[in-house]
This record gives sequence, structure tokens and C-alpha cells, in this order.
Amino acid sequence: MKAITRIEQSLAAAIALGEDGSCPPRLAGAIHHAVFPGGARIRPQICLAVAQACGEDDPLLADATAIALELLHCASLAHDDLPCFDNADMRRGRASVQWAYGPALAVLAGDALIVRAFQTLAMGACHSPLRLPGLMATVGAGVGTPGGIVAGQAWESESRVVLADYQRAKTGALFVAATMGGAQAAGADPEPWRALGDGLGLAYQVADDIRDAAADPALIGKPVGRDVALGRPSAVTQLGLEGALAHFRGLIAQAADAIPDCEGGSGLRQLVLGESERLIPASMAEALRQRAALSAIVSA
Amino acid sequence: MKAITRIEQSLAAAIALGEDGSCPPRLAGAIHHAVFPGGARIRPQICLAVAQACGEDDPLLADATAIALELLHCASLAHDDLPCFDNADMRRGRASVQWAYGPALAVLAGDALIVRAFQTLAMGACHSPLRLPGLMATVGAGVGTPGGIVAGQAWESESRVVLADYQRAKTGALFVAATMGGAQAAGADPEPWRALGDGLGLAYQVADDIRDAAADPALIGKPVGRDVALGRPSAVTQLGLEGALAHFRGLIAQAADAIPDCEGGSGLRQLVLGESERLIPASMAEALRQRAALSAIVSA
Repeated sequence: MKAITRIEQSLAAAIALGEDGSCPPRLAGAIHHAVFPGGARIRPQICLAVAQACGEDDPLLADATAIALELLHCASLAHDDLPCFDNADMRRGRASVQWAYGPALAVLAGDALIVRAFQTLAMGACHSPLRLPGLMATVGAGVGTPGGIVAGQAWESESRVVLADYQRAKTGALFVAATMGGAQAAGADPEPWRALGDGLGLAYQVADDIRDAAADPALIGKPVGRDVALGRPSAVTQLGLEGALAHFRGLIAQAADAIPDCEGGSGLRQLVLGESERLIPASMAEALRQRAALSAIVSA
Repeated sequence: MKAITRIEQSLAAAIALGEDGSCPPRLAGAIHHAVFPGGARIRPQICLAVAQACGEDDPLLADATAIALELLHCASLAHDDLPCFDNADMRRGRASVQWAYGPALAVLAGDALIVRAFQTLAMGACHSPLRLPGLMATVGAGVGTPGGIVAGQAWESESRVVLADYQRAKTGALFVAATMGGAQAAGADPEPWRALGDGLGLAYQVADDIRDAAADPALIGKPVGRDVALGRPSAVTQLGLEGALAHFRGLIAQAADAIPDCEGGSGLRQLVLGESERLIPASMAEALRQRAALSAIVSA
């Protein structure tokens, strides 16, 4: 089975467990809206790829770990779009959860998804219960305080922010949980997998900054230019467009180099390089350069 | 050590784990504000009392379960006070989290507390890891979908609500998790403890409705009359004040009768009856009756 099929099926099964007749129907709708249809599901894909590279002796637990991370990611998007943060009306090319269901149900859908993530992890550990505490520590570190994605979002409420700390928490932490959690789900030592997650997370954040600052809204399915409009730290405002593009390429190369020697290493390397092209296609980089050059001529 | 001392110390230790230098300082402040100073800590008290009644062979896990439930309760209060729900400026006699730190940090503090609850549970299971999956299922059912406190809050966004379903999810579910989780933390069968949690939870919700509809704001430290103002289902609007008081007394008696035969049963019974008097003191019930009688004369 293709990884993406496996992920979508497991996500549907995890969500269905909370959807019986006693669930308030609009909450069930908001949760569904937050998870389906999804984006690239890159965190669970990376998690499964690492689990496979580590011998994947418990596919049920690998699935559960991958799905838990995606549910936490979906929860963070539902909350990030709230009026007190981005106040976004669009996400993944259609209405955001808060726009479609209102902010109250967007808050509750996010809360329910965080809980569902940990429930999924616990259920998936039935064959390897002794791996559960370590996996929960890894997943918890990726999402909670002091340095998970919740902390990353909270840096936007501080008056002084270090860009690298902010990016590492806001995006990197969940990628680190994906690589290390994938290893732990397969019973392997997670530490050698930290650097891959760290590099990938930083690369994603820089790619997001580039796409936010410069891309055509029609290409990425959400409003753009919000980082600049909201005065947020961004690689583009700090390094300029060309500097941010170079930084992105360097981070992807570092991430690919950080893959430990293992049986599935070359497949993982391909996944990383493929994601780089998906995030910032060569054609997009070239168009951005031309636009920047034109703008320099006009303002000269 | 008194149970309340044990609870406060364990809460402080759990929160401190997320507060190292890399945590955004305002988020750390908001989390602290959401948890300290607390209310009666009744859910963890009940959880510890049940664990003791079941022989409590792993105090670390009993503590972790109790603390996880209190963190989830604090998270739900931080979110319930948001502008999209109660928009409350006061909680426990001082500023609510959203009022003191703004809604963004109130959302994130709640999220971080949900995660911290599950992290605490996982860390506390180091001596009895095989109890962790079952405990997580119990705690997850108390807080998530389809019937936990998140679902309870979501019923307020539905146009048609069954009062008993709403109350069971909104308040009862976490009490059921407290009694069943206390038993599981001690390695005992949780099922015989379900009825106690169920009865207590319903009694608490009815007490909250009575206090909301009728009490002096100075007595309970938060704005009152909100259920009626917001058109929410309430035992007082459905049964009248006298009916609600009788319903409350009946539920407390049922809960006390539901305590299984066990060594610590009489202590637990005392805890339940003491809580009844703390929630609706006889003097408060009498004053409410007099006010209702006066109001009937005035309107006659």
C-alpha cells in the first residue's frame, strides 16, 4: 500500500472513533473539516519512512505515531486560523474551520484533535506498550512547552524573538517528533534521527516564509503577505528573497546529509529532495527572482 | 501528607517541567495563571481518594492521574472563558486568563495544558507502564469526543440539546475519569467506580446551575446569571430553584450510595457529603428559598 493511502485510511479510522451518535454533530463536522481533505501529509510520511528505514517491526504503532502527529498539525492549523491569531478565512484552498464553523467550534475541534492524537498513540501501542511512554515524551516535546509548536506560536505574542528559536519551535519541533517518533515506533534509538527532523523543520519554515512573502495566492491556497503585514519574524524580511532561497537550499542539503546510514536511506533522501521541489519549484524560484529584479529596476 | 498538599506540590512540579528558559515567558505566565491559585481541586482529590480506597500500590501514578485531570480541567476553564464562549473577565475571584494575557495566550495555555496532562500521565507510569494505555483511554474519554468535556462545551453550539447528555459530557465525564482513573492507577478494575463519578458529575453541574442562576457574585468569584443570559440549558430553568435543589440532594445521595464496598469507603463517603455542603451550603439554600419566596410575593 502507498504511504499516503495508509495515512488517509488510518486518519479516517482515528477520526471515526470520536464520531458516534453521542458526539455533537457540528463538532464532528468541524473536526472532519480540520482533517479532510488534507495537505501533503508530510509529517506522517516522514515518520513512516523513518520507521521503515528502522525495520518497522510494529506497523500499527508506526501508523499511530504518524497519525498522531498529523492530528496535532491539523489542530494547530485550526487554532492558528482563529481571529486572535491569523484570522484566516481560507486554508488549503477552502474555508478555514473558524470561517466554516465559527471560532468556538474551531477551538473545540483543535482541543478534541489534540486529545485524539494521544488516544490514537495509546491504542496503537497495544503490541508494544513499553514503547508508549518514550513516544509520548517525544510527541509531547514536539507540541507542548517549552519548545513545541504551541510555544512556537506563542513566540508571536512576545516583543523580543530570536528567529531561529521561533522557527525551531513553530515548525521544527513537530518534524523532530516525526523523525524521532518514527524510529521509536520501530524500537530504534531516536537520537540519530534528531538532526534530520531539525533540518527539515527549519527548511519548511523558510519555505513558508518565502511563499508567504512572494507567492501568488492562487498557487498556495491561503492569503499571503501576512508575516510582513503582521510584523512577524520572517526569513525573507531578515535575509532578503535571494538570501532566503539560498538558506532554504542549504537546509535541504543539510537535512539530506543528516540521514543516518540505513537500509531505507536512499528512499528517504529522495523523499526529502522531492519535498524541496514541491515546496519551492525551480520555476517558482525563477519567477520570484524576475519579479524582484523588475521591482529593483522600477524603484531605481 | 494531606491530599491537597500532595496535589499542589505535584501540580507545581508538572508545570515547572515546561517552564525552562526556552519557553516564551508570557506563555509560561499564562499557564501559571491558569493553574495557580486553584479552586477546590476536587477532581484530583476524588481520584486520589479512590486510588487509596483501591490499595494505591503506585502513588506516583495516582498523583500523575490526579494531576492530569486537574490540568485538563484548568485547560477547559481557560478556553471556556474565551470571547467566543463565556467572554469572562473573572475566574476564581480574579482576572481570567484571557483577560490577563489576551485570547491568543489563553488558547495556547489551554493547548499546552492538554499536552502537559498527557505528558504527566506518561512520566508517572514509569513503574507501571502497562497501566498507561488503559489510563489514557479513560482520561481521553473524559475530555475528548464523543462524550468528554470538549464535547460537552460543543453542545452549546447546537440548536437542539438533551439536558442530561449535555451535563454528562460537560461536567460528568471528567468526574468519571477521576473515579475510574483512580482505580486504574492502583491496578484495580475501573468499572465499579463509574457510577460514583457519574453521580458526582451530575451533582456538580446542577450545583453550578443553581449557583449561576441565584448566587451572589461575591460568593463564587465569577459573573453569574450567564446561563440564563446566554440561553443555555440549565437545571434551574428546567426544574425551578426548589426542584433543582432537590435534584442536587438526590444526586449527592445517589453518588454516596454508589461507592463500592472497600476499605476507604467511609472516608470517600465523607468527602462526597462534605463537598455537597461546600457547593451548596445549607445557609445558601435557605437564603435562595427566601429570595424566591420574596420575589413570588412581589410579582403576585
